Amino acid sequence: MPEKTLNTLFEDTLCDIYYAERQILKALPKMAKAATSEALADGFEQHRQETEIHVERLEKIFEMIDKRPRGKTCDAILGIIEEGKEIMEEYKGAQALDAGLTAAAQAVEHYEIARYGTLKAWAQQLGLDEAVQLLDQTLAEEKATDEKLTALAESDVNREAA
Amino acid sequence: MPEKTLNTLFEDTLCDIYYAERQILKALPKMAKAATSEALADGFEQHRQETEIHVERLEKIFEMIDKRPRGKTCDAILGIIEEGKEIMEEYKGAQALDAGLTAAAQAVEHYEIARYGTLKAWAQQLGLDEAVQLLDQTLAEEKATDEKLTALAESDVNREAA
Repeated sequence: MPEKTLNTLFEDTLCDIYYAERQILKALPKMAKAATSEALADGFEQHRQETEIHVERLEKIFEMIDKRPRGKTCDAILGIIEEGKEIMEEYKGAQALDAGLTAAAQAVEHYEIARYGTLKAWAQQLGLDEAVQLLDQTLAEEKATDEKLTALAESDVNREAA
Repeated sequence: MPEKTLNTLFEDTLCDIYYAERQILKALPKMAKAATSEALADGFEQHRQETEIHVERLEKIFEMIDKRPRGKTCDAILGIIEEGKEIMEEYKGAQALDAGLTAAAQAVEHYEIARYGTLKAWAQQLGLDEAVQLLDQTLAEEKATDEKLTALAESDVNREAA
Protein backbone atom coordinates (compact mmCIF):
# COMPACT_ATOMS: atom_id res chain seq x y z
CA MET A 1 0.00 0.00 0.00
CA PRO A 2 1.47 3.40 -0.92
CA GLU A 3 2.33 5.73 1.98
CA LYS A 4 -0.44 8.22 2.61
CA THR A 5 1.16 11.64 2.64
CA LEU A 6 -0.12 15.19 2.79
CA ASN A 7 -0.40 15.00 -1.01
CA THR A 8 -2.84 12.10 -0.66
CA LEU A 9 -4.80 13.95 2.01
CA PHE A 10 -4.90 17.12 -0.11
CA GLU A 11 -6.27 15.19 -3.06
CA ASP A 12 -8.81 13.27 -0.93
CA THR A 13 -10.08 16.49 0.60
CA LEU A 14 -10.25 18.14 -2.81
CA CYS A 15 -12.53 15.26 -3.92
CA ASP A 16 -14.61 15.77 -0.75
CA ILE A 17 -15.22 19.48 -1.33
CA TYR A 18 -15.71 18.94 -5.09
CA TYR A 19 -18.56 16.55 -4.25
CA ALA A 20 -19.86 18.98 -1.60
CA GLU A 21 -19.88 21.98 -3.96
CA ARG A 22 -21.89 20.07 -6.54
CA GLN A 23 -24.42 19.04 -3.91
CA ILE A 24 -24.67 22.68 -2.83
CA LEU A 25 -25.27 23.69 -6.48
CA LYS A 26 -28.31 21.39 -6.49
CA ALA A 27 -29.59 22.56 -3.08
CA LEU A 28 -29.38 26.34 -3.58
CA PRO A 29 -32.18 26.69 -6.18
CA LYS A 30 -34.49 24.72 -3.85
CA MET A 31 -33.62 27.03 -0.98
CA ALA A 32 -34.15 30.11 -3.17
CA LYS A 33 -37.56 28.77 -4.21
CA ALA A 34 -38.53 28.05 -0.60
CA ALA A 35 -37.48 31.44 0.81
CA THR A 36 -40.25 33.99 1.39
CA SER A 37 -37.93 37.01 1.67
CA GLU A 38 -36.90 38.28 -1.74
CA ALA A 39 -33.52 39.44 -0.40
CA LEU A 40 -32.81 35.94 0.92
CA ALA A 41 -33.89 34.29 -2.34
CA ASP A 42 -31.64 36.69 -4.28
CA GLY A 43 -28.78 35.89 -1.91
CA PHE A 44 -29.16 32.15 -2.56
CA GLU A 45 -29.26 32.73 -6.33
CA GLN A 46 -26.18 34.95 -6.19
CA HIS A 47 -24.34 32.32 -4.16
CA ARG A 48 -25.35 29.64 -6.70
CA GLN A 49 -23.58 31.65 -9.37
CA GLU A 50 -20.48 31.98 -7.16
CA THR A 51 -20.58 28.26 -6.45
CA GLU A 52 -20.31 27.52 -10.18
CA ILE A 53 -17.05 29.46 -10.17
CA HIS A 54 -15.89 27.58 -7.05
CA VAL A 55 -16.41 24.29 -8.91
CA GLU A 56 -14.39 25.59 -11.87
CA ARG A 57 -11.56 26.66 -9.55
CA LEU A 58 -11.47 23.18 -8.03
CA GLU A 59 -11.25 21.70 -11.54
CA LYS A 60 -8.25 23.96 -12.24
CA ILE A 61 -6.57 22.72 -9.05
CA PHE A 62 -7.14 19.08 -10.04
CA GLU A 63 -5.45 19.96 -13.32
CA MET A 64 -2.52 21.56 -11.45
CA ILE A 65 -1.87 18.30 -9.56
CA ASP A 66 -2.41 16.22 -12.73
CA LYS A 67 -5.56 14.50 -11.52
CA ARG A 68 -8.96 14.04 -13.09
CA PRO A 69 -11.70 15.96 -11.17
CA ARG A 70 -13.48 13.39 -9.07
CA GLY A 71 -16.05 13.68 -6.28
CA LYS A 72 -15.88 11.56 -3.13
CA THR A 73 -19.12 11.11 -1.17
CA CYS A 74 -19.06 13.69 1.60
CA ASP A 75 -21.27 12.54 4.49
CA ALA A 76 -20.86 15.89 6.20
CA ILE A 77 -22.47 17.96 3.43
CA LEU A 78 -25.20 15.33 2.93
CA GLY A 79 -26.07 15.65 6.64
CA ILE A 80 -25.97 19.44 6.57
CA ILE A 81 -28.19 19.62 3.45
CA GLU A 82 -30.57 17.05 4.97
CA GLU A 83 -31.09 19.40 7.92
CA GLY A 84 -31.89 22.19 5.47
CA LYS A 85 -34.48 19.94 3.80
CA GLU A 86 -36.07 19.23 7.18
CA ILE A 87 -36.40 22.98 7.78
CA MET A 88 -38.09 23.41 4.36
CA GLU A 89 -40.57 20.65 5.19
CA GLU A 90 -41.22 21.33 8.87
CA TYR A 91 -41.38 25.12 8.59
CA LYS A 92 -43.22 25.40 5.24
CA GLY A 93 -45.61 28.34 5.51
CA ALA A 94 -44.37 29.21 9.00
CA GLN A 95 -43.21 32.61 10.24
CA ALA A 96 -39.78 31.23 11.10
CA LEU A 97 -39.04 29.55 7.75
CA ASP A 98 -36.59 32.17 6.47
CA ALA A 99 -34.72 32.27 9.79
CA GLY A 100 -34.33 28.48 9.59
CA LEU A 101 -33.19 28.61 5.95
CA THR A 102 -30.62 31.27 6.78
CA ALA A 103 -29.27 29.12 9.62
CA ALA A 104 -29.08 26.09 7.32
CA ALA A 105 -27.16 28.11 4.73
CA GLN A 106 -24.74 29.34 7.39
CA ALA A 107 -24.03 25.74 8.44
CA VAL A 108 -23.16 25.03 4.79
CA GLU A 109 -20.90 28.10 4.62
CA HIS A 110 -19.06 27.11 7.79
CA TYR A 111 -18.40 23.62 6.46
CA GLU A 112 -16.87 25.19 3.37
CA ILE A 113 -14.87 27.73 5.40
CA ALA A 114 -13.36 24.86 7.43
CA ARG A 115 -12.48 22.83 4.32
CA TYR A 116 -11.09 25.69 2.23
CA GLY A 117 -9.06 26.97 5.20
CA THR A 118 -7.54 23.51 5.61
CA LEU A 119 -6.90 23.04 1.87
CA LYS A 120 -5.24 26.45 1.64
CA ALA A 121 -2.89 25.64 4.55
CA TRP A 122 -1.99 22.29 3.01
CA ALA A 123 -1.42 23.84 -0.43
CA GLN A 124 0.96 26.33 1.22
CA GLN A 125 2.82 23.48 2.93
CA LEU A 126 3.03 21.62 -0.38
CA GLY A 127 4.29 24.69 -2.26
CA LEU A 128 1.26 24.76 -4.61
CA ASP A 129 1.28 28.53 -4.91
CA GLU A 130 -1.28 28.89 -7.70
CA ALA A 131 -3.67 26.60 -5.84
CA VAL A 132 -3.21 28.71 -2.69
CA GLN A 133 -4.42 31.77 -4.61
CA LEU A 134 -7.52 30.05 -5.98
CA LEU A 135 -8.39 28.49 -2.60
CA ASP A 136 -7.93 31.84 -0.91
CA GLN A 137 -10.34 33.55 -3.34
CA THR A 138 -13.02 30.97 -2.67
CA LEU A 139 -12.39 31.08 1.08
CA ALA A 140 -12.84 34.87 1.06
CA GLU A 141 -16.12 34.52 -0.88
CA GLU A 142 -17.49 31.88 1.49
CA LYS A 143 -16.68 34.11 4.47
CA ALA A 144 -18.32 37.08 2.74
CA THR A 145 -21.46 35.01 2.07
CA ASP A 146 -21.60 33.96 5.73
CA GLU A 147 -21.32 37.61 6.82
CA LYS A 148 -24.03 38.67 4.36
CA LEU A 149 -26.34 36.00 5.79
CA THR A 150 -25.63 37.23 9.33
CA ALA A 151 -26.42 40.80 8.31
CA LEU A 152 -29.62 39.72 6.55
CA ALA A 153 -30.71 37.68 9.57
CA GLU A 154 -30.09 40.54 11.97
CA SER A 155 -31.73 43.21 9.84
CA ASP A 156 -34.75 41.37 8.65
CA VAL A 157 -35.29 37.67 8.83
CA ASN A 158 -35.12 37.10 12.60
CA ARG A 159 -37.33 40.08 13.34
CA GLU A 160 -40.01 38.80 11.00
CA ALA A 161 -39.76 35.35 12.53
CA ALA A 162 -40.25 36.53 16.11
CA MET B 1 -51.00 22.45 14.12
CA PRO B 2 -49.47 25.19 16.31
CA GLU B 3 -47.72 28.04 14.46
CA LYS B 4 -43.99 27.46 14.21
CA THR B 5 -42.36 30.62 15.50
CA LEU B 6 -38.80 31.65 16.27
CA ASN B 7 -39.36 30.13 19.74
CA THR B 8 -40.02 26.75 18.12
CA LEU B 9 -36.98 27.10 15.90
CA PHE B 10 -34.80 28.12 18.85
CA GLU B 11 -35.91 25.07 20.81
CA ASP B 12 -35.48 22.70 17.82
CA THR B 13 -31.97 24.01 17.19
CA LEU B 14 -31.12 23.73 20.89
CA CYS B 15 -32.12 20.03 20.66
CA ASP B 16 -29.94 19.69 17.53
CA ILE B 17 -26.79 21.11 19.15
CA TYR B 18 -27.48 19.24 22.43
CA TYR B 19 -27.42 15.98 20.45
CA ALA B 20 -24.34 17.16 18.53
CA GLU B 21 -22.38 18.09 21.67
CA ARG B 22 -23.02 14.67 23.18
CA GLN B 23 -21.83 12.96 20.00
CA ILE B 24 -18.71 15.13 20.09
CA LEU B 25 -18.14 14.10 23.73
CA LYS B 26 -18.02 10.49 22.57
CA ALA B 27 -15.80 11.19 19.54
CA LEU B 28 -13.10 13.30 21.21
CA PRO B 29 -11.49 10.53 23.32
CA LYS B 30 -11.22 8.37 20.18
CA MET B 31 -9.54 11.24 18.33
CA ALA B 32 -7.17 11.86 21.26
CA LYS B 33 -6.25 8.17 21.30
CA ALA B 34 -5.65 8.13 17.53
CA ALA B 35 -3.46 11.29 17.45
CA THR B 36 0.30 10.74 17.28
CA SER B 37 1.24 14.30 18.31
CA GLU B 38 1.03 14.74 22.07
CA ALA B 39 0.06 18.40 21.69
CA LEU B 40 -2.87 17.41 19.46
CA ALA B 41 -3.99 14.63 21.85
CA ASP B 42 -3.83 17.10 24.76
CA GLY B 43 -5.84 19.60 22.73
CA PHE B 44 -8.59 17.03 22.10
CA GLU B 45 -8.68 16.09 25.80
CA GLN B 46 -8.86 19.73 26.86
CA HIS B 47 -11.70 20.32 24.41
CA ARG B 48 -13.53 17.27 25.80
CA GLN B 49 -13.50 18.91 29.21
CA GLU B 50 -14.81 22.17 27.72
CA THR B 51 -17.51 20.24 25.86
CA GLU B 52 -18.84 18.88 29.18
CA ILE B 53 -19.35 22.47 30.28
CA HIS B 54 -21.03 23.30 26.94
CA VAL B 55 -23.52 20.49 27.57
CA GLU B 56 -24.24 21.85 31.07
CA ARG B 57 -24.80 25.33 29.67
CA LEU B 58 -27.31 23.95 27.16
CA GLU B 59 -29.13 22.20 30.02
CA LYS B 60 -29.35 25.54 31.83
CA ILE B 61 -30.85 27.15 28.73
CA PHE B 62 -33.46 24.37 28.43
CA GLU B 63 -34.34 25.15 32.05
CA MET B 64 -34.63 28.88 31.25
CA ILE B 65 -37.23 28.15 28.56
CA ASP B 66 -39.00 25.58 30.79
CA LYS B 67 -38.18 22.58 28.62
CA ARG B 68 -36.67 19.23 29.43
CA PRO B 69 -33.21 18.79 27.81
CA ARG B 70 -33.75 16.63 24.75
CA GLY B 71 -31.51 15.67 21.84
CA LYS B 72 -32.76 15.62 18.25
CA THR B 73 -30.79 13.48 15.78
CA CYS B 74 -28.41 15.82 14.00
CA ASP B 75 -27.49 14.39 10.59
CA ALA B 76 -24.89 17.11 10.10
CA ILE B 77 -22.74 16.15 13.08
CA LEU B 78 -23.15 12.44 12.31
CA GLY B 79 -21.78 13.08 8.81
CA ILE B 80 -18.93 15.26 10.06
CA ILE B 81 -17.92 12.69 12.71
CA GLU B 82 -18.19 9.90 10.11
CA GLU B 83 -15.61 11.73 8.00
CA GLY B 84 -13.32 11.89 11.05
CA LYS B 85 -13.71 8.11 11.51
CA GLU B 86 -12.76 7.55 7.87
CA ILE B 87 -9.57 9.58 8.43
CA MET B 88 -8.73 7.45 11.50
CA GLU B 89 -9.21 4.26 9.48
CA GLU B 90 -7.72 5.28 6.14
CA TYR B 91 -4.72 7.19 7.56
CA LYS B 92 -3.90 4.87 10.50
CA GLY B 93 -0.12 4.73 10.80
CA ALA B 94 0.34 7.29 8.00
CA GLN B 95 2.41 10.46 8.10
CA ALA B 96 -0.62 12.61 7.37
CA LEU B 97 -2.89 11.19 10.11
CA ASP B 98 -2.59 14.15 12.49
CA ALA B 99 -3.16 16.66 9.69
CA GLY B 100 -6.35 14.79 8.77
CA LEU B 101 -7.52 14.60 12.40
CA THR B 102 -6.94 18.33 12.84
CA ALA B 103 -8.98 19.07 9.71
CA ALA B 104 -11.79 16.80 10.96
CA ALA B 105 -11.82 18.59 14.31
CA GLN B 106 -11.96 21.97 12.57
CA ALA B 107 -15.00 20.84 10.58
CA VAL B 108 -16.66 19.98 13.92
CA GLU B 109 -15.73 23.37 15.38
CA HIS B 110 -17.13 25.24 12.38
CA TYR B 111 -20.44 23.39 12.65
CA GLU B 112 -20.64 24.47 16.27
CA ILE B 113 -19.61 28.05 15.47
CA ALA B 114 -22.45 28.24 12.91
CA ARG B 115 -25.03 26.82 15.32
CA TYR B 116 -24.02 28.85 18.40
CA GLY B 117 -23.82 32.05 16.32
CA THR B 118 -27.36 31.42 15.09
CA LEU B 119 -28.69 30.48 18.54
CA LYS B 120 -27.15 33.59 20.09
CA ALA B 121 -28.75 35.85 17.46
CA TRP B 122 -32.15 34.21 17.99
CA ALA B 123 -31.83 34.44 21.80
CA GLN B 124 -31.15 38.17 21.40
CA GLN B 125 -34.20 38.53 19.19
CA LEU B 126 -36.29 36.62 21.76
CA GLY B 127 -35.00 38.71 24.68
CA LEU B 128 -33.44 35.69 26.43
CA ASP B 129 -30.58 37.72 27.89
CA GLU B 130 -29.16 35.06 30.20
CA ALA B 131 -29.15 32.53 27.38
CA VAL B 132 -27.33 35.05 25.16
CA GLN B 133 -24.52 35.21 27.74
CA LEU B 134 -24.14 31.44 27.99
CA LEU B 135 -24.27 30.98 24.20
CA ASP B 136 -21.72 33.71 23.76
CA GLN B 137 -19.29 32.05 26.19
CA THR B 138 -19.51 28.76 24.34
CA LEU B 139 -19.24 30.47 20.96
CA ALA B 140 -16.04 32.23 22.08
CA GLU B 141 -14.58 28.92 23.29
CA GLU B 142 -15.41 27.12 20.02
CA LYS B 143 -13.73 29.92 18.06
CA ALA B 144 -10.68 29.77 20.36
CA THR B 145 -10.44 25.99 19.85
CA ASP B 146 -10.59 26.44 16.08
CA GLU B 147 -7.79 29.03 16.25
CA LYS B 148 -5.67 26.75 18.46
CA LEU B 149 -6.09 23.95 15.91
CA THR B 150 -5.04 26.29 13.09
CA ALA B 151 -1.93 27.34 15.04
CA LEU B 152 -1.07 23.72 15.86
CA ALA B 153 -1.49 22.70 12.22
CA GLU B 154 0.67 25.54 10.98
CA SER B 155 3.44 25.08 13.53
CA ASP B 156 3.71 21.36 13.62
CA VAL B 157 1.19 18.93 12.21
CA ASN B 158 1.25 19.92 8.52
CA ARG B 159 5.05 20.12 8.42
CA GLU B 160 5.35 16.60 9.79
CA ALA B 161 2.75 15.36 7.33
CA ALA B 162 4.52 16.79 4.28
